[in-house]
Amino acid sequence: MTIAKKIDEFQRRSSWIRKMFEAGAQLKAEHGAENVFDFSLGNPNLTPPEKFEETLSDIIKNRASHAYMPNVGYPDVREAVAQFVSAEQEMALSGNDIIMTCGAAGALNVMLKALLDPGDEVMTPTPFFVEYGYYADNHGGVLKTVPTNADFTLDLNAIEEAVNEKTKVLLINSPNNPTGQVYSEESLNALGAMLEKKGKELNRTIYLISDEPYRKIVYDDTHVPSIFTCYKESMVATSYSKDLSVPGERIGFIAVNPNATYKSDLINGMALANRILGFVNAPALMQRAVGALQGTTVDISEYAGKRELLCDGLSACGYEFVKPAGAFYLFAKAPIADDVEFVNALQDELILAVPGSGFGGPGHFRIAFCVDDETIKNAMPGFEKAMERFK
Amino acid sequence: MTIAKKIDEFQRRSSWIRKMFEAGAQLKAEHGAENVFDFSLGNPNLTPPEKFEETLSDIIKNRASHAYMPNVGYPDVREAVAQFVSAEQEMALSGNDIIMTCGAAGALNVMLKALLDPGDEVMTPTPFFVEYGYYADNHGGVLKTVPTNADFTLDLNAIEEAVNEKTKVLLINSPNNPTGQVYSEESLNALGAMLEKKGKELNRTIYLISDEPYRKIVYDDTHVPSIFTCYKESMVATSYSKDLSVPGERIGFIAVNPNATYKSDLINGMALANRILGFVNAPALMQRAVGALQGTTVDISEYAGKRELLCDGLSACGYEFVKPAGAFYLFAKAPIADDVEFVNALQDELILAVPGSGFGGPGHFRIAFCVDDETIKNAMPGFEKAMERFK
Repeated sequence: MTIAKKIDEFQRRSSWIRKMFEAGAQLKAEHGAENVFDFSLGNPNLTPPEKFEETLSDIIKNRASHAYMPNVGYPDVREAVAQFVSAEQEMALSGNDIIMTCGAAGALNVMLKALLDPGDEVMTPTPFFVEYGYYADNHGGVLKTVPTNADFTLDLNAIEEAVNEKTKVLLINSPNNPTGQVYSEESLNALGAMLEKKGKELNRTIYLISDEPYRKIVYDDTHVPSIFTCYKESMVATSYSKDLSVPGERIGFIAVNPNATYKSDLINGMALANRILGFVNAPALMQRAVGALQGTTVDISEYAGKRELLCDGLSACGYEFVKPAGAFYLFAKAPIADDVEFVNALQDELILAVPGSGFGGPGHFRIAFCVDDETIKNAMPGFEKAMERFK
Repeated sequence: MTIAKKIDEFQRRSSWIRKMFEAGAQLKAEHGAENVFDFSLGNPNLTPPEKFEETLSDIIKNRASHAYMPNVGYPDVREAVAQFVSAEQEMALSGNDIIMTCGAAGALNVMLKALLDPGDEVMTPTPFFVEYGYYADNHGGVLKTVPTNADFTLDLNAIEEAVNEKTKVLLINSPNNPTGQVYSEESLNALGAMLEKKGKELNRTIYLISDEPYRKIVYDDTHVPSIFTCYKESMVATSYSKDLSVPGERIGFIAVNPNATYKSDLINGMALANRILGFVNAPALMQRAVGALQGTTVDISEYAGKRELLCDGLSACGYEFVKPAGAFYLFAKAPIADDVEFVNALQDELILAVPGSGFGGPGHFRIAFCVDDETIKNAMPGFEKAMERFK
């Protein structure tokens, strides 16, 4: 073997996920893609808002520069983002508190590169976005998971018990992938107070990082609270991938709490990390586009409709789940303990979903409902049949 | 300190470079940017070809998707790139041998992530692009430098002596930043034979990575030889930043030698690395653009003209240098041993250049001539005065 041992091991470890995707591709080849109900990917099915394409056209017509800019991004774009985030986070930010990044995945890698010393721990509640494990490991850190309550809300006692002298980052994701849960203001305030107390006890700054790419995709007047008001040593990682339906363009940002104790070290360190990790800067054209599109989103009511369709359908079949408050994922309980076996049973009905084990949430499966309404409707007989099989 | 110790140390170590840039910014603030001769940045001054903007417009008009695609890139774009690279590398490639990346910096990080085990060495000839040190370190590797000949061509004996049981990668950059040197076919063939021999002796695959973002920017009918024909365990990292003048857009690719022994491990490992490092995929819109623009470049004769202006001017002032065969850099000998002192003396003449020490080439300074002709012409009296001061 002449590639890195770790990369080789990662490949082996995730081979069951790959096999599952290959089985899905095989099903599509056999039965025609239109006859397979694919709920496996968080690839938004809505097209970007018309205004997004118009903005791109305008930028190109105006012959905007494609040259290097500062590693942190265009000053005017950072300023526009800061203004918008000030309202979201209920705290005044300036452009200097923003770093434009290659999506939220780029943002998280830049943050962890700038923060982690070897062996530092990144703690995250389960179930969680699996990539977090790789991101922590990329920069010499270790991902540690803590359980959540049965409804996937934060279990503050579990977190408090788990925080230790190696904890550098608490990484939360709200609205959550895969559960759709949104953490309440009350729980975040309690979390902030606890982190402050533990930080003093351990004589260590514990950073709270909130990964928020689904912040704008919420239902029933759900409010996604500010993390900046609940704890000052905090940062936001996010992207426009989901709310503008442009995940292939890799555009997002980091926002640093304007009251963070070591703000300038953080900003300078992350600017360096953005450069040396090879991102260099967020794509120029997309920076300009999102700078001009603050607050623009796809029509969220479309996802709301899909959520109702799915929840009503699954309930009627007897599935148990927490109705997602945000994002476009539903994390349902499998009728048997072995979620991989159940997902295989769904494949027999030409339904593709992802086993909860892939998210550190065994006994469940994730349905990404960023698909056509017809896909949801037409999959219901299959969902019912799979449930019947194990009842 | 609550950022990573290593990042903090990197900041300190490079503080002299930052100071120098700040001094340059200060000069511009004092004297007006138009009165300062800035040769410090490899930010191309030419605007992208008209065809680039037209292609972007067409893509947007056609409402191309901005969704996720495979981590390695769009199949049709990879195919178009493979066809073009087949001609450049004088060997038939397929789209499966290509991975689209966020620029060459992204490509190099993906490659090293996929290749390096802890402590593995990446060897590169001096002077070299300083970011290489960070890229190797990011992924647990160590950068080792080997000297070149006086004219910056490869010193094969030095390389052969330096290769050891920890060497995993030989990283070359031709046309070179900062010297503009292009390695000959003869030297590359000898290098390939040597690496093959050493690999057998050490029972280890030593990869040759060629960083080639300046391949299309060459002068006087210089030919940039294929590295694929000289050594089979080889890969190319490159970008469109320089030849299309779009460095802010972060678009490039990796090409793997179709005869590489572990080709599929390499491709799969790098696809995984592209994902978990947070790049996920190269920006979608720019992938489509470059896919449609294979072989299109800015007008290289403009850089050729600047090179003549600069070389004639500096020669007349008494500077010694190897005339660059490619890229838009000239690496001149400073008239005194202390290149930082000499660059400071140039700043007294409102000329900004980068000390050779920053590239592991002390006693020299780098002039980036991707600037207006007027900047080159008007800087000459200053270059002359600085030379006179130390004669």
